[in-house]
Amino acid sequence: MSENEVLVGKKPLMSYVLAVITQLSEAKGDVVIKARGRSISSAVDIVQIVKNKFAKDAKIGEVKLGTQEVEAKEGGKINVSTIEISIRK
Amino acid sequence: MSENEVLVGKKPLMSYVLAVITQLSEAKGDVVIKARGRSISSAVDIVQIVKNKFAKDAKIGEVKLGTQEVEAKEGGKINVSTIEISIRK
Repeated sequence: MSENEVLVGKKPLMSYVLAVITQLSEAKGDVVIKARGRSISSAVDIVQIVKNKFAKDAKIGEVKLGTQEVEAKEGGKINVSTIEISIRK
Repeated sequence: MSENEVLVGKKPLMSYVLAVITQLSEAKGDVVIKARGRSISSAVDIVQIVKNKFAKDAKIGEVKLGTQEVEAKEGGKINVSTIEISIRK
């Protein structure tokens, strides 16, 4: 798998938008935008901004939803939702 | 279209989980979970809780992403991201 990934965290939206656009122009296959928890909404925002404003010919491919078990700060484990959105030119 | 919908807003997650489970048991076709903006993360949480805890045989179908124009409180229009997740038994 030579997959291009952008993992969405707490930086400003536009830095991820820029990363996706850069990878779209360089990538041979899909660019996959990944996020979990509260960042899922931001991942969808990023994909929509890329598609509506910068790469109007880009196509949204598969959207995968999942659950990940992570260590809680207080100890123990909690479940966190995940999303993976594929986009290609 | 006799589609069953659950629109995710600001109620506690479990009230939407319950609504989805009820509709899944009554519906003939898909149940569609819709959300916009910050509620998108909650929609994914709801689908994952339904699938992992209550309806393990449920299948996630199409996941549609989109953008909606809404009136801003301050006047003018803003773009809000949307998600629609189909789930069926």
